[in-house]
Amino acid sequence: MHFLIIGGSDAGIAAGIRAHELDPTCEITLVLADEYPNYSICGLPFFLSGETPDWHSLAHRTEFPGIRLMPNHAAESIDPIGKSVVVRNGSGVQLELRYDKLLIGTGARPVRPNIEGFYLPGVFPLHTMEDSFAVHRFMEEQQPKSAIIVGAGYIGLEMADALTHRGIRVTIASRTETVLATVDPVYGRLVEAELQRHGVEVWNQVEVTSIQSLDSQLSVLGTQNFSRTADLVLVAVGVQPNSDLGATAGILTGTKGALRVNRRMETNLADVYAAGDCVETWHRLLNRYAYLPLGTTAHKQGRTAAENAIGNNREFAGSLGTQVVKLFDLVAARTGLRDHEARRAGFDSFTAQTTVWDHKAYYPGARELHLRITGDRTTGCLLGAQLLGHKNSEVSKRADIFASALYHNMRVEELNDLDLSYTPPLSSPWDPVQMGAQFWANAVRKESPVVIPSA
Amino acid sequence: MHFLIIGGSDAGIAAGIRAHELDPTCEITLVLADEYPNYSICGLPFFLSGETPDWHSLAHRTEFPGIRLMPNHAAESIDPIGKSVVVRNGSGVQLELRYDKLLIGTGARPVRPNIEGFYLPGVFPLHTMEDSFAVHRFMEEQQPKSAIIVGAGYIGLEMADALTHRGIRVTIASRTETVLATVDPVYGRLVEAELQRHGVEVWNQVEVTSIQSLDSQLSVLGTQNFSRTADLVLVAVGVQPNSDLGATAGILTGTKGALRVNRRMETNLADVYAAGDCVETWHRLLNRYAYLPLGTTAHKQGRTAAENAIGNNREFAGSLGTQVVKLFDLVAARTGLRDHEARRAGFDSFTAQTTVWDHKAYYPGARELHLRITGDRTTGCLLGAQLLGHKNSEVSKRADIFASALYHNMRVEELNDLDLSYTPPLSSPWDPVQMGAQFWANAVRKESPVVIPSA
Repeated sequence: MHFLIIGGSDAGIAAGIRAHELDPTCEITLVLADEYPNYSICGLPFFLSGETPDWHSLAHRTEFPGIRLMPNHAAESIDPIGKSVVVRNGSGVQLELRYDKLLIGTGARPVRPNIEGFYLPGVFPLHTMEDSFAVHRFMEEQQPKSAIIVGAGYIGLEMADALTHRGIRVTIASRTETVLATVDPVYGRLVEAELQRHGVEVWNQVEVTSIQSLDSQLSVLGTQNFSRTADLVLVAVGVQPNSDLGATAGILTGTKGALRVNRRMETNLADVYAAGDCVETWHRLLNRYAYLPLGTTAHKQGRTAAENAIGNNREFAGSLGTQVVKLFDLVAARTGLRDHEARRAGFDSFTAQTTVWDHKAYYPGARELHLRITGDRTTGCLLGAQLLGHKNSEVSKRADIFASALYHNMRVEELNDLDLSYTPPLSSPWDPVQMGAQFWANAVRKESPVVIPSA
Repeated sequence: MHFLIIGGSDAGIAAGIRAHELDPTCEITLVLADEYPNYSICGLPFFLSGETPDWHSLAHRTEFPGIRLMPNHAAESIDPIGKSVVVRNGSGVQLELRYDKLLIGTGARPVRPNIEGFYLPGVFPLHTMEDSFAVHRFMEEQQPKSAIIVGAGYIGLEMADALTHRGIRVTIASRTETVLATVDPVYGRLVEAELQRHGVEVWNQVEVTSIQSLDSQLSVLGTQNFSRTADLVLVAVGVQPNSDLGATAGILTGTKGALRVNRRMETNLADVYAAGDCVETWHRLLNRYAYLPLGTTAHKQGRTAAENAIGNNREFAGSLGTQVVKLFDLVAARTGLRDHEARRAGFDSFTAQTTVWDHKAYYPGARELHLRITGDRTTGCLLGAQLLGHKNSEVSKRADIFASALYHNMRVEELNDLDLSYTPPLSSPWDPVQMGAQFWANAVRKESPVVIPSA
C-alpha cells in the first residue's frame, strides 16, 4: 500500500508517523514544497525574539522513521482517476507519483490585506520559515528601533511580545474592539493592560489603509486618524485555507474555501483524505463544520486520516476551539463557545465571570485568576470557558479541565464532582475551576447582578 | 428545619455553606471542639516554615453567613431516638442541642505510634492548630538547629521542606521502601533526590523504636541501626478516623474504624449524615469503600450531605485518590490506581513510564516531566497516572486532566481526542498527557522492553 502525503507540516507528518506506527509495512511518501519538514510555525515569534536563537531547533522532530521525505517538491495536480499526483522539484523537473491512498495537508496561507504599500521593503507577512528568515535578516541588517504590527490575533500579539523582548518599540493596530478578539472584550482589555505595562502602544478599531516610505521609515495610515511611523511593519491579519490543489482536482469546498471532509477525514474523491489548516473542521459543540486552523487539530486530523487510510475506522472527535497564548507574564486561554457564539447556535446561554486566587492566599505568590464561564441555563451544561492569569498559575491546563468537561458534555454543577488535585501552593480544596462552576451556578440561581454581559 | 453540624473543618463548613446557599430558611448550627473554624490543616507546614507568618491567614474563610457557630463546644453524645446531641463548653457546662438533621464531621486524629519516649519535651505530633502552636513556640524558644522527622508521607515531607526553609538541618526516618509511598518507588527515589539536593538526609525502611533525652538533645533509635540526635523530633505517621462519637451512638464502622455511609452520606441512623476524614469513602474506580482522608473529598462529601439533608437527592461521585504535593521545586501528583492496586482489584493492569518536555524544548526553560500511566490492557481503559516535574510545569493540573478522564472512564487512546490547549511556552501540539497516552498504547502494542515494572 502506497500512502502519499502532500504537505510536511503538522497534519502530514502526524499522518505519516501514525501510519508507520500501526502498519510498518505501509509505504509512505511525503512531498513538501519547502525544505522544512514539521517545523513549528507557532515557534516563529520566539525565533524572532531571540529566545530561540537557532531556527533549526524549531523542528518538532528531525527523524521520520518509515517515511520517505521529498523536500522541495511542490504538488501541481492530482489525477483522482489514475490515482497519481504530479510534483515539480526545485529545478523544475516534473515527476508523477502514484498512490493507493492520498492525504492532502497543504495548510493555510496568510490573508493578503488590501493595504496600499504592502509590498514595500520593510513590510512583512509572517507565516512561513522563509517569511521569518526575511524578517530576521531585515532586523540584523537594519537594526529597527520601532515596529508597527497590523493585526492583534495570536501571531500579532506574540510578535509584539517578541519585538519588545528585542528592545524594539511596538505599536499595534487592531481592527477589532479590543486585541485578542478570540476572548471577550472584558478580557481583551486585560490583555491590553499587560501589553501597555510593557510599553506596547495599542490602537483598536483601526483599519490600516496604506503604508508609505518616508525618510527611510515606513508611515502607516488607517481609519480613526491612525498615523504612525516605524522602521518595520509586520502584517498578521489571519490565514485562509490553501485548498486550490484539492479544489482543482474536484474536492468540494465549504467555509472560506476550505476542503470538505467527513469525520473520517475523507473527501468526496475516493481514497483521498485531507487534514489540517486546508480543511473544514468538525466542531464538537456546534455540531457542524467551521474553519478553525490550529496545530493541535491538524495533528489529530492527520492521525485520524492515517488510521482510516491503513484500514482502521476512526472518527475525528471534533474541535472545541481550545486555544491559549502567553503574552509577557499573562496567559489567556479559551475553550468551547463564548456567550454570543452559543446564543447564535441556539443555546440558552448564560455567562458569569469571577476572579479567585490561583492557590491558597496564605501561601506566598498567590495571584488573581480570572474565569468566565458560559453554560446553558436550561440544560445546565457547560458550553465554554475563558481564563486569564499569570503564566505560573496553570491557566492553560485549567482551561484543559474545562475542555475535558466539554468533551464529555458535562453539566457545570457536575464539575464539582471531579476529584481534582490540591495542595496549598498550587490550588484550593475547590480548585478555581470548581469555584468558577459554583459561581456560575449560584449566579444562574440568583440571576446575580455581578454577571457581566458578554461582548 | 434545624441542621446541626458537629465539626468545624472542611466537611462541616462545606455542608453549612451549601445548606444555606440552597435553603436560606434552614437553621444551621455548627459546634466545634476548638476555636478554629475551617482552618487549613494543610497549611500548617507553611506556618511553621515562616512562609505564612500569621496563622490567622490559614482560615479558609472567616465569615459563615447563615451558620450559628459554637466554638469550644465538644460533642459528647448523640441520642438518635430523641434526636439531640449533648455538648460541653470550655467551662464544663453541658448543653443539649436538638436536631432535625445531623451531620457528623469529626475528622481524624494522628496515629500515636508505639515509640518509647514519644511524650518527651521536644517531640511533637502535627495535626491540629494547637500542635502547630506548640511546635512554633518550641522553635521560637529553643531555636533548634536540627530535626528528625518520623514519617515520610505528605506532612512529614512538607515539614522537611518547611524546616529546611527555616535553616534547620533535617533527617527523615521513613518506614517505607522510599519516601512518599503514595507513588511508585521509582518516583519516590526522584523525590528523595530532590530532598537530598536541599540537604535533607533520608533513611528508608527504618522503624523508629525509641526517643531518649541526651545532653539537651533528643536521641532517636530505630531498626537498621538508625541512630541520630537532633534538637526537635516531629512524628507524622498518618491519621485514623475520629469516629468514637458516632460509633458510640450506634453508627456502623468499617475500614480502620471509619463510619459507614452510603453515597448520599447517610449513616444507618435516621437523619444522621457523616462526612470527611471520619468516614469510609466511596472509591470510584475500585467500586468499593476505602479510607481516604483528604480535604478535597471532605468538602465534596459535606456538600453532598447538606444537599440531601435539605431534601435534594445527590450522590457523592466518589474519590479517585487524586493527590499532589510540592516539595522544594518538585511537584508529585497521582490520581487513580497504581499498578499493584489495579492488579489486586482484578484489572489487567499495565504500566508504562515516559519522560517528555513540559513544553516545546526550543522555548527557554523546558523541563523534564515524568509520567507513569496505568491502564487496563483488555479494555484499554485508563486506571491511573503518576506525574512528577517542576513546580512551574503545570504538573498538578495535568494530573487533573487524567483525573477528569478517569471520572469518565476513558480509554487511554481516547485521551488523544481531547482538544487540549497548546502554545510553545506551555505545552506541545500533543500535550505531555497525550504523549504519555500514546507511549502507553505503543508500549502495550509492542510489550515494549522500556516498560518499567511497578512497585
